[in-house]
Amino acid sequence: MNEIRLFAPASVANVSCGFDVLGFCLDPVGDEMVVRKVAEKGVRITKIEGEDLPMETEKNVAGVAALAYLEEHPCAYGFEIEIYKKIKPGSGIGSSSASAAGAVFGVNYLMDKPLPKAALVKYAMAGESLASGAAHADNVAPVIMGGFTLVRSIAPLEVIQLPTPKELIAVILHPKIELKTAHARSILKKTVPLNKAIQQWGNLAAFVSALYTDNYSLLSRCMIDEIIEPYRSMLIPEFDAIRSSAINAGALGSGISGSGPSIFALSQGEEKAKNIAKAMAKIISNLPIEHEVFISKINTEGIRILNQQ
Amino acid sequence: MNEIRLFAPASVANVSCGFDVLGFCLDPVGDEMVVRKVAEKGVRITKIEGEDLPMETEKNVAGVAALAYLEEHPCAYGFEIEIYKKIKPGSGIGSSSASAAGAVFGVNYLMDKPLPKAALVKYAMAGESLASGAAHADNVAPVIMGGFTLVRSIAPLEVIQLPTPKELIAVILHPKIELKTAHARSILKKTVPLNKAIQQWGNLAAFVSALYTDNYSLLSRCMIDEIIEPYRSMLIPEFDAIRSSAINAGALGSGISGSGPSIFALSQGEEKAKNIAKAMAKIISNLPIEHEVFISKINTEGIRILNQQ
Repeated sequence: MNEIRLFAPASVANVSCGFDVLGFCLDPVGDEMVVRKVAEKGVRITKIEGEDLPMETEKNVAGVAALAYLEEHPCAYGFEIEIYKKIKPGSGIGSSSASAAGAVFGVNYLMDKPLPKAALVKYAMAGESLASGAAHADNVAPVIMGGFTLVRSIAPLEVIQLPTPKELIAVILHPKIELKTAHARSILKKTVPLNKAIQQWGNLAAFVSALYTDNYSLLSRCMIDEIIEPYRSMLIPEFDAIRSSAINAGALGSGISGSGPSIFALSQGEEKAKNIAKAMAKIISNLPIEHEVFISKINTEGIRILNQQ
Repeated sequence: MNEIRLFAPASVANVSCGFDVLGFCLDPVGDEMVVRKVAEKGVRITKIEGEDLPMETEKNVAGVAALAYLEEHPCAYGFEIEIYKKIKPGSGIGSSSASAAGAVFGVNYLMDKPLPKAALVKYAMAGESLASGAAHADNVAPVIMGGFTLVRSIAPLEVIQLPTPKELIAVILHPKIELKTAHARSILKKTVPLNKAIQQWGNLAAFVSALYTDNYSLLSRCMIDEIIEPYRSMLIPEFDAIRSSAINAGALGSGISGSGPSIFALSQGEEKAKNIAKAMAKIISNLPIEHEVFISKINTEGIRILNQQ
């Protein structure tokens, strides 16, 4: 096999109560990538469509991720990568993570899969760190592994696959303003009140319990973030109104997707999801901001192979 | 039925990564209590054996808890409570919680159980708050409900019952020095570094996953506390050496039980637990401190009825 065409999906990180550790994988939106074996060693980005992103391997998240992989798994041949960018950079649904994860997945696949999925996360993180200024796994892990993932620890890296309740549906509203993850991170305080931290870890632990027990109402009660959201939501126009509209329309919960500006909501079932999407869109359509709304099942597979030759 | 004799077990709160929210119930050690219906309304503590504790209802944790229950569930008759104290106050294994939980359980039982177990927790907390200066449920919840419990939220109160892996065994070392919970709480900082908080909620969430999946090695990796333990352990002689001895003897993890001074360890299987108990005892026996060590299965039932008439 010499070439693989894959779909690297978007993802939602943080998920209200799980800042920096929890994430889940989306389904309909994602980058397409072609990874191709070539005789010349190393990694080259040969094509990028859809966005104006650096072609230089060391400045491209996909390139950096692939290089990180190859540094530990040297290879007698090299790779070309084409990126058909569909996820808008800076949208908060894991644009850089999708490209980084796709590159590592593709290279590993063409080398006859020496590593299992979970072991790919750390190389994709190298790409992610180029984009956000810090190495995080909460987007790349669900993109690679699918479903909900929990990053227990970064050093050493340990990612846990969590179960996905079957009726869970996500709604994503993307207000088309760009927020840089690095900026959204810089406005956070370095310390948090102990009582808020206790509340957060109680909610996250209960969220995990809810995933294991298909307990939608418990899941709903856990979706609180009094630590990060109060700061980051100031960067998102009408965040509170949009979030409230989602809840009022029946959402289990709603919050900032990653570092924003996208806002996600979770719903039990697709019918409700449609109403939630409408309600969220209605609020933002009062503002002079381009936007996009979509509904997604939770993608339990992660990156998908579209084609190989 | 006019009288119930019950066993109100000891418990371990915090469990390294779950400060203020996680706890589990112990088995062999606990208070015995008799709760008796009497014609005269109200609550009277008529006997306390084993410890010198206040007989005055309003100053006794069992009395306060029973009164809190009766305030919301008025009763045409009253109750006498006898307490045969076996759990040393200030030992860190939920002495006050056992008495508070036992009183509420007994009164509810004699009133023909109008409330399910989970609903009793909030009244037992009233007693607990008399003892520790703050209302916490992380000891009373496992005593009442059994097994591992998670306090998702205090206001409104929500306690979640978690599964108990079958081979899990606890070892408790009680160095007989008294630590007041209120003091152990006062030395804590009011803020915590965000990166440490993230580590803690990642570990707690993964601990919950480990309970659902019987994953003992994951459970072991989660048992870290870099927020509370560094401060509280200073109050416990040779804590680090005792903890290390438990780990070296094969413990999955070890930490401070509640606010100390008791130190707990968790083990997979009873054989290992015996070695762990020996190793911990060996370190403390070098110090001029009276101590006690015991091994306990995780009590998944909670408070037990010994006798009723």
